[in-house]
Amino acid sequence: MTSEFDLIARYFTRPAPAGMLGVGDDCALFSVPDGHQLATSTDLLLEGRHFFSDVDPASLGHKALAVNLSDLAAMGAKPIACVLGLGLPELDDAWVAAFAKGFNALSDRFGCPLIGGDTTRSTTGLIISVTVFGAVPTEHALRRSNAKVGDDIWVSGELGAADVAYRLLAGRLPQDQHRLEATRHALEWPEPQIALGLALRGVANAALDVSDGLLQDLSHILKASGAGAHIEYAALPVAEGLRADADDQAKGARIALEASALAQALLGGGDVYELCFTAGVDRRDAVLTAAQHAGVNVTRIGRIRATPGITVTDQAGEHLDQLPSGFDHFQAI
Amino acid sequence: MTSEFDLIARYFTRPAPAGMLGVGDDCALFSVPDGHQLATSTDLLLEGRHFFSDVDPASLGHKALAVNLSDLAAMGAKPIACVLGLGLPELDDAWVAAFAKGFNALSDRFGCPLIGGDTTRSTTGLIISVTVFGAVPTEHALRRSNAKVGDDIWVSGELGAADVAYRLLAGRLPQDQHRLEATRHALEWPEPQIALGLALRGVANAALDVSDGLLQDLSHILKASGAGAHIEYAALPVAEGLRADADDQAKGARIALEASALAQALLGGGDVYELCFTAGVDRRDAVLTAAQHAGVNVTRIGRIRATPGITVTDQAGEHLDQLPSGFDHFQAI
Repeated sequence: MTSEFDLIARYFTRPAPAGMLGVGDDCALFSVPDGHQLATSTDLLLEGRHFFSDVDPASLGHKALAVNLSDLAAMGAKPIACVLGLGLPELDDAWVAAFAKGFNALSDRFGCPLIGGDTTRSTTGLIISVTVFGAVPTEHALRRSNAKVGDDIWVSGELGAADVAYRLLAGRLPQDQHRLEATRHALEWPEPQIALGLALRGVANAALDVSDGLLQDLSHILKASGAGAHIEYAALPVAEGLRADADDQAKGARIALEASALAQALLGGGDVYELCFTAGVDRRDAVLTAAQHAGVNVTRIGRIRATPGITVTDQAGEHLDQLPSGFDHFQAI
Repeated sequence: MTSEFDLIARYFTRPAPAGMLGVGDDCALFSVPDGHQLATSTDLLLEGRHFFSDVDPASLGHKALAVNLSDLAAMGAKPIACVLGLGLPELDDAWVAAFAKGFNALSDRFGCPLIGGDTTRSTTGLIISVTVFGAVPTEHALRRSNAKVGDDIWVSGELGAADVAYRLLAGRLPQDQHRLEATRHALEWPEPQIALGLALRGVANAALDVSDGLLQDLSHILKASGAGAHIEYAALPVAEGLRADADDQAKGARIALEASALAQALLGGGDVYELCFTAGVDRRDAVLTAAQHAGVNVTRIGRIRATPGITVTDQAGEHLDQLPSGFDHFQAI
């Protein structure tokens, strides 16, 4: 019978980089560079709540680490290492091997070795707990609390695809295989914007990653910074797989369900893992240079203002009503 | 409706100590002292597997942190901070308040503030994930791999009580209210031996905490150090609540079930969270001084030898047969 120790050893134990102590002692050990602080983030992912039971295990391994690396990106931190807690319903070697492959590939790509963990049997579905560690120069982290009135609001990449894919898979949007194919990659293989986060140090004033929905996440910046925001709906970077819908909506085509679903996806959709950040108007060139350096697109979507709250206007300058709220893990799934 | 954010804020968010960034940003931030490495450990605890559904929530909050602090103790690391992932079946304020009280009390006592976390709804029972961070002077951690042939083997505190309490509660030993009362505290309120771990730096050669059972845990030291061990059964520090049983056994009283249950508890019982460590024979006084400084008892229970494997002998020098193995979380619960 495969034991807990065999399982860890077979798929996850890799030689720890020089200077680190990895799996196989009471604690993992590593150093933080001089003049840096340690940045850490943890996420708990549960089967049936954060992912579907039949999800591709390689994509799940990727995503479990990606969502945590995204938190490092949002602080401007450089990855150092990670640990993994795994509650497994059964010892399915092929499943664990595929999960480890997705996890290890991303770990290798971002120089974030797995140096410790805890594996246990779960009789109630798969449980994944990832904690990542990164380093950021002391006092140079991208905080949420530093947005200034007048700042541009930016977002990296595109919005909406992950939410639409989730709703299609959950049966909350009418079946549409073409649309699912166009959006699913965003949901299952999010790319943490580490390079952008590093490039934005000293450029952005405030930053976070969009995990619960643009408006809800932006509200955290606003609350922490004591400010409000205005968002231009037409400026939002619509995911490529949704652009036909957006064009239909702009033309006034009468597809009300699509319009509301699109607005929900862009403004309220979670699982995006792009960075939303603010920077002074005089830093626009610096932001674009940072984005170019990181190889990602960034889009200006609004401004920070003194008046509390968030308003969203359409191309005609009209306020959008019925703004979607974000995804609260304690609200209905 | 209480939301995820309210819940975290109400019971767990406390002002982060100076120089740290706590709950409320993408990452928590803290510094590691110059000349120190970061030590980290993570544990995943599941309802029905690691604790009973009707466990006292205050003791569970205590234990969830204690088992991780115990890993820091075993490395000789000083606690810095911790993060908590919590999957909650339902929003029971009183339960969460009691859990937080147990967790926060231990966190305060060991200077290990909660600086981040992730809370989510779980439909499949309670899930607890704790990751702790500590600091240890570079190259001075208590590793598993450094036991030397001829070293004394020591254990702190007492053995056996937690295992007997667990078996009584699980119905695997005949009901015995008196015995349960005498052993339950050890199972539910383990005390991490942080002070001892710190005092043993530079004194002990190898160390770990006994979480899966003395023999199984000791085998990790032996494997990592390329050595074997001899244990004297009569030298094992029997928990106070079990001493009558031990006396009966020593007198040869015919209570076979008790004798085997006691041997199982002492040699194979998990959930102990005492330190097992090795030190040179010439360091006996230093070990006792360290223990006195930490305010705990330590007991010499055997020796490291070159011959692989572990032998256990009784008072007459006879080898004990049928040694219990430890608790592997993937073997039968």
